[in-house]
Amino acid sequence: MNKYWSELANRLDPYVPGEQPKDRKYIKLNTNENPYGPSPRVLEAIRNCTDESLKLYPDPTCDTLLTAAAEYYGVRKDQVFAGNGSDEILAFSYMAFFDPGKAILFPDITYTFYPVYAQLFNIEYKLINVAEDFEIPEKELYQSPGGVIIANPNAPTGKYMPLASVKRILDNNAASVVIIDEAYIDFGGESAVKLIEEYPNLLVIHTFSKSRSLAGMRLGFALGDSNLIKAINSVKNSFNSYTIDRLAIAAGIEAFRDVEYFEAARKKVMGTRERVSAEMAAMGFNVIDSKANFIFTSHPFVKAAAIFALLREKGILVRYFNKPRIDNYLRITMGSNTEMDVFLATVKDIVQAY
Amino acid sequence: MNKYWSELANRLDPYVPGEQPKDRKYIKLNTNENPYGPSPRVLEAIRNCTDESLKLYPDPTCDTLLTAAAEYYGVRKDQVFAGNGSDEILAFSYMAFFDPGKAILFPDITYTFYPVYAQLFNIEYKLINVAEDFEIPEKELYQSPGGVIIANPNAPTGKYMPLASVKRILDNNAASVVIIDEAYIDFGGESAVKLIEEYPNLLVIHTFSKSRSLAGMRLGFALGDSNLIKAINSVKNSFNSYTIDRLAIAAGIEAFRDVEYFEAARKKVMGTRERVSAEMAAMGFNVIDSKANFIFTSHPFVKAAAIFALLREKGILVRYFNKPRIDNYLRITMGSNTEMDVFLATVKDIVQAY
Repeated sequence: MNKYWSELANRLDPYVPGEQPKDRKYIKLNTNENPYGPSPRVLEAIRNCTDESLKLYPDPTCDTLLTAAAEYYGVRKDQVFAGNGSDEILAFSYMAFFDPGKAILFPDITYTFYPVYAQLFNIEYKLINVAEDFEIPEKELYQSPGGVIIANPNAPTGKYMPLASVKRILDNNAASVVIIDEAYIDFGGESAVKLIEEYPNLLVIHTFSKSRSLAGMRLGFALGDSNLIKAINSVKNSFNSYTIDRLAIAAGIEAFRDVEYFEAARKKVMGTRERVSAEMAAMGFNVIDSKANFIFTSHPFVKAAAIFALLREKGILVRYFNKPRIDNYLRITMGSNTEMDVFLATVKDIVQAY
Repeated sequence: MNKYWSELANRLDPYVPGEQPKDRKYIKLNTNENPYGPSPRVLEAIRNCTDESLKLYPDPTCDTLLTAAAEYYGVRKDQVFAGNGSDEILAFSYMAFFDPGKAILFPDITYTFYPVYAQLFNIEYKLINVAEDFEIPEKELYQSPGGVIIANPNAPTGKYMPLASVKRILDNNAASVVIIDEAYIDFGGESAVKLIEEYPNLLVIHTFSKSRSLAGMRLGFALGDSNLIKAINSVKNSFNSYTIDRLAIAAGIEAFRDVEYFEAARKKVMGTRERVSAEMAAMGFNVIDSKANFIFTSHPFVKAAAIFALLREKGILVRYFNKPRIDNYLRITMGSNTEMDVFLATVKDIVQAY
């Protein structure tokens, strides 16, 4: 026990993000960022707001940003919440919807921040084991005592759960909130946003860090029944009145409006994924079918940890999780086509050397 | 009880920030923003970072920003924490240092966010009544069961507590953390940062929203023993890995470096405060001696609520708190000299019409 720390601080085991190394220039395929920069219109919008007005607080209600979001999604403004990245929204959501003593359910292999929030807010959780092929056993998420969280597509597997399954999970959890974390949904999945009118217990969370190429600006959104959005706002306004700065608000508005750029960028990433998946399979890799901007893959005889280390030496960063069940897999973010050519050639060398 | 809300969400009573009206152009003297814009070097630094790199996550450790902060304050990097405004840092600090069941102490008249955090994190608190002249009775803050928070200068009174008192409070709370919230310290007070080597239980919190003219960018800092900073980092990394975006980091670094601009801006604000205080006193107002960028004042026969409403009609926003003990006071942020001339003339009209 550390004398000045709270009991909470003494028992925390924080989340560890993918490394952002400063020692040399890497091909970064380790944190699921977008290889293509933000829309030029977004950069222009930021520049136009970089003036004396930064002395003023941002709008705490993010009104114009919510309007842009509501227009894009075809929902009402009171069905949207804007936050400092989807991680902040997840944190607020634990406080808004989950209670100590009522266990929530999520898969054993998923975003590793979920159990960290549970620890931070003293929420019990029960892990649902995914199948050998990483499919989430839908029925085991029915009738949760305290709520459900599903990343869809799942991370770090990229595995996608069809909307029909999501609906059945919602139907079978009428008494508690089901969070669908759709950080990667723009890369080929069907969003559950269309279900929010139908399900008062559904909260869908999106991020601008992946498909919108704005990881550096910290923007995320929650969509759901206005009653759920109201609870998140209550928590947020008890925590920090202004979590999104003026330039991030400006960036977000323009990113929603520049649909053309967004469509082109996400399609390029999906094309790269299909090509890289095929080439990896041709090299003998087992590639999990992905609807995300990354692939999850293992090789029948070259260990993932070894490939990870050798790639790092060659200046290529991928993500390796030294955790039960996935410690022979690599998660590889889709870079630009040029970056992926270097990656594929390097992996080929590594595998052939064995 | 709302069905889908947690017990916590059901009992929250969130903080209400000063209004940011959109209906018309006001002279805004209600949220303690700086009348002078950010340093031109800061704006330039933001523009230089507005590029493709926004697709990448910010550095989660804010390393270069901490280096700039450490240099400015003359402390070590591990004695500084950077957050999304001082409000976020306060929230993290409640989690890091305070425990349910051990009451913390703070004055009855102070920043109204303190009891909101207590409610959010289920921390008991005991209010210490300030004197009639709003002085904080130092000795009543000794031997706190769970910790102490003092805004110094205090808000919304502007009243400053000398460092000798702060030291005695620290000496008499050796077993718990004392937070000195110095949001307004740059307007004439002496900072407790110089005490952090001496007191392992001292956390000093600063913001860039006031003296640094960057309310729109969301930046705050905590300074203290590395052991305290470590606990805040544990909480932050269990909550949101990246709370400060790339442009805010760039802005913060340059703001620390442009000392000349900072010194000139804060001195201008202090000069305005002295002039406005004197003119208000000449009109018969009771003006509390302020070391902040605002004054707290009441009139012997014209009610604060009436002045507030009449000023608003004339396009001038000040802050009025409809709360016991201070419901006949106005908190007036120092605007530019031109703005304050309009304000003083308008107040004179209002008072003379009575």
